[in-house]
Amino acid sequence: MQQLTVNLDDRSYPIHIGAGLLDQIDLLAPHIAGKQVCIVTDDTVAPLYLERLCQTLAGYSLLPVILPTGEAFKNWSTLQQIFDALLNARHDRRTTLIALGGGVVGDMTGFAAACYQRGVDFIQIPTTLLSQVDSSVGGKTGINHPAGKNMIGAFYQPRAVLIDTDSLKTLPDREVSAGLAEIIKYGLIRDSGFHAWLEEHMPSLRKLDPALITEAIARSCAIKAEVVAADEREGGVRAILNLGHTFGHAIEAHQGYGTWLHGEAVGAGMVMALEMSRELGWLPAEDCRRGIDLIARAGLPTAPPRGMLADDFRQLMAVDKKVLDGQLRLVLLRQLGEAVVTADFEAAVLDGILAGVGQ
Amino acid sequence: MQQLTVNLDDRSYPIHIGAGLLDQIDLLAPHIAGKQVCIVTDDTVAPLYLERLCQTLAGYSLLPVILPTGEAFKNWSTLQQIFDALLNARHDRRTTLIALGGGVVGDMTGFAAACYQRGVDFIQIPTTLLSQVDSSVGGKTGINHPAGKNMIGAFYQPRAVLIDTDSLKTLPDREVSAGLAEIIKYGLIRDSGFHAWLEEHMPSLRKLDPALITEAIARSCAIKAEVVAADEREGGVRAILNLGHTFGHAIEAHQGYGTWLHGEAVGAGMVMALEMSRELGWLPAEDCRRGIDLIARAGLPTAPPRGMLADDFRQLMAVDKKVLDGQLRLVLLRQLGEAVVTADFEAAVLDGILAGVGQ
Repeated sequence: MQQLTVNLDDRSYPIHIGAGLLDQIDLLAPHIAGKQVCIVTDDTVAPLYLERLCQTLAGYSLLPVILPTGEAFKNWSTLQQIFDALLNARHDRRTTLIALGGGVVGDMTGFAAACYQRGVDFIQIPTTLLSQVDSSVGGKTGINHPAGKNMIGAFYQPRAVLIDTDSLKTLPDREVSAGLAEIIKYGLIRDSGFHAWLEEHMPSLRKLDPALITEAIARSCAIKAEVVAADEREGGVRAILNLGHTFGHAIEAHQGYGTWLHGEAVGAGMVMALEMSRELGWLPAEDCRRGIDLIARAGLPTAPPRGMLADDFRQLMAVDKKVLDGQLRLVLLRQLGEAVVTADFEAAVLDGILAGVGQ
Repeated sequence: MQQLTVNLDDRSYPIHIGAGLLDQIDLLAPHIAGKQVCIVTDDTVAPLYLERLCQTLAGYSLLPVILPTGEAFKNWSTLQQIFDALLNARHDRRTTLIALGGGVVGDMTGFAAACYQRGVDFIQIPTTLLSQVDSSVGGKTGINHPAGKNMIGAFYQPRAVLIDTDSLKTLPDREVSAGLAEIIKYGLIRDSGFHAWLEEHMPSLRKLDPALITEAIARSCAIKAEVVAADEREGGVRAILNLGHTFGHAIEAHQGYGTWLHGEAVGAGMVMALEMSRELGWLPAEDCRRGIDLIARAGLPTAPPRGMLADDFRQLMAVDKKVLDGQLRLVLLRQLGEAVVTADFEAAVLDGILAGVGQ
């Protein structure tokens, strides 16, 4: 088992990574203040892991809430199911919510915890590779709005994160690739050595080699934890974690949430960001090629969906949360391992990238 | 003009109290970071003050959002109107929300600010006496759930509060009394000298004597600010601000939100808390009489609605946010000016108080 800490003063919390953690009550108990525990999961994960977690938590008063699966349900009416269950069961302020599932379950459970009676404790048990390396670290919670992804939410930190790598055994290959997209991102924005390590081990990582995947998750979480600790509320450097996401969110919104997996959209979005960084003369062509190559080898798309046009991107990117006073900012690369957030680029270069899409 | 500060480290903010503040851009401008301002108000307050505020803020890109009036609309679908307007107008993270109205507008605008793009700035301009002395100080925001009041929300502090006492001139007498309920509360829980001052000036306060009402608001806000600074997230002492509210919330929920004004329900609830404190042998009978007398002289009800039975109270109070691990806690008085939050009372005494209702 590996352990690291996200350092946020009185909101600091541990991340445990390893096999079989779902059975270890000693990792959970210190983070549960009262007797009431509400386990939020979805109808894909519930048949796989809910009973096991309930056995681990047998000493508590348990309330399971099973949501419909998928990004399409990451909205207010699904969130309301959590509130209804908590209120019907009379869960009070000392209750602890546990998110058991992927990023959608984590984001909604975290936001429910942030809002229920103005804030209760929660614990993340992410079961997908993507949520293990991304949404479970950093406290971003929320739901989608028809006009944009994650537009309604809160910064709200969990008390602890448990990453049981055994849960990856049931994950479809497509979702493994989606998780690798975010892992690749950490190398690109912050750690060229990690990028080289990923180039070396990509085939084994796709096969979920236990030691290698644990290492990849731990290094990803460590990079994210470091960035989040430096800038919890995304006033500055934290925005680099969004490499490929402005393009990617536009792809997800255009296709309808859930059609493309988040990681797939980020994969194609990172390719666009890499190419734009190259066209601006910032990123050497060889680095750009290496980045795109690794994304392809992870089994990810390297171009946006056919039929999505430049104007679709422009319209959907205009509501991005990184837009400030009307100006679009993008995360771009100076070199492998170094990202910047900037509005200081020639519009013509973005136009050129967008002119190439849809074909 | 009086000014005081709510001390909450990097979330500290000023409260300005006086006549004609709505026209003073120099009190607002320092707290607006960007160019976009969204003024949220309701269809009662909009015809009275919206245009004036828009004139004051003429230099900004303004987005007015006019909600239906009343506690009955303090729900998700009304909140959604704010999000829809912000997204349609492409307001970004640097937008500032301004709440222009009573407690419902303030609670919903604050919660919208807490959640929009995971948190944007907001300013409170409370226009009712109740919101001026209560909800505009302390950062409690939220909406109601059919199963309980303010069950969904956040602790989220405004950047500034502007209390323009001129706005009280258009307030119905019934709402003046409702505001006085919370003012009386501050004396009861924390300041017997203030209680005596209120006894002396109650007739003039009901007539909104400018100097006296400014003084009453300032003293109320100062007491609340002091309690909130000591316990922002209501881990302990802050709960004393809920004197009469556990009973009061049950009354509101039973009657349907908006039938009784919040301050009226709190008035009747404080009478129940005073009587219970006397029955427990904690509060001298003379102090209890003085408290009830002042509540009556403020024009407030001193008994719950006819037809509301003991079991109605029991059921509705069981979901109170002060319930911890299934145990009901109440705010009670040791003497005039000293409140305690406790679960340590004989159940029979509560039963006795409840046995007296509904007649």
